[in-house]
Amino acid sequence: MTNTSRGCTIWFTGLSGAGKSTITEHLVPLLKARGSKIEVLDGDVVRTNLSKGLGFSKEDRDTNIRRIGFVCHLLSRNGVVAIAAAISPYKAIRNENRALIKDFVEVYVKVSLETCIKRDVKGLYKKALAGEIKEFTGVSDPYEPPENPEVICETEKETPIESAQKIVRKLEELGYLIPLAPVGSDGKYAAPEQLTALAA
Amino acid sequence: MTNTSRGCTIWFTGLSGAGKSTITEHLVPLLKARGSKIEVLDGDVVRTNLSKGLGFSKEDRDTNIRRIGFVCHLLSRNGVVAIAAAISPYKAIRNENRALIKDFVEVYVKVSLETCIKRDVKGLYKKALAGEIKEFTGVSDPYEPPENPEVICETEKETPIESAQKIVRKLEELGYLIPLAPVGSDGKYAAPEQLTALAA
Repeated sequence: MTNTSRGCTIWFTGLSGAGKSTITEHLVPLLKARGSKIEVLDGDVVRTNLSKGLGFSKEDRDTNIRRIGFVCHLLSRNGVVAIAAAISPYKAIRNENRALIKDFVEVYVKVSLETCIKRDVKGLYKKALAGEIKEFTGVSDPYEPPENPEVICETEKETPIESAQKIVRKLEELGYLIPLAPVGSDGKYAAPEQLTALAA
Repeated sequence: MTNTSRGCTIWFTGLSGAGKSTITEHLVPLLKARGSKIEVLDGDVVRTNLSKGLGFSKEDRDTNIRRIGFVCHLLSRNGVVAIAAAISPYKAIRNENRALIKDFVEVYVKVSLETCIKRDVKGLYKKALAGEIKEFTGVSDPYEPPENPEVICETEKETPIESAQKIVRKLEELGYLIPLAPVGSDGKYAAPEQLTALAA
């Protein structure tokens, strides 16, 4: 399949439980339908393969996020769409990565802390609120939202597939992705919704 | 320029001062002349960007080498020729990376410890022999040579460019690299020596 994308980094940021991984799960098949080369660096992959031994202090978090940024940088500049799906709470380090990578698409997964606490998929907020987990983002450690993210996904108002399609549209707009093929006799390109159907 | 190479990892191993970086410097332009996408992960790049905080204990060395292997794996499977140029002293971890990466070309830079001590480009052997550096490979920490490396570069007997050409030939033999273009009216392909001239 022809690769119709250009290397870039899709950099998610948002609270634990905001929906970063769920949106990623919906985004990946959409990108695959375009022939993109994709690598996902989510929290688990990174903690296992890049950041074993790092804790959750500010310094260790910064090292972790810089390291993910370095790997995304190597991948992006070789034509891969690298997806980083870590909490990435601090603005300064995200902006450092933006400066390094350049082809950087920041996706803010916006959701209220209350909703995250209510969802609490992994049971982590309960533990954090009980003081059993220290330095937990949003509870006992700060989260700094981005000021000018390329995309905002509001997971209290939109479905994961709508969020994923929003990202695809932005990638098209920024020139990182061109549609797969003209659809129909009018010669118009496939819309993200049609590609969702193709990828299903 | 057409990319005439397939993703793989060129995994150097050898004592400090064996010539890994020097051969890499000669290899990179040869690969560039073929349009390869290349990333070099040498000791410095890795210590700065991937392994800050790790020391030289067996455990930390293993973590370091596994981490380089993980990044080479991501790059190789996306069509990049990843070059790892670390000492990489332990056989077991190299073989772990071989199993992970699969497209793995091990290059043993073979040289006697005596020659390394004589060269001592960075003055590290002097310090290690004086006991000022602990856990120094070849002096106070083991080096386990590979049993079946794809390439052996004997830097006491051959020039760095000869070593680099040897690697290029092996990459061709293994199908990771095809020659740039036929040369001459006989339709034969360019030999590594001719490419050296092109890259100069």
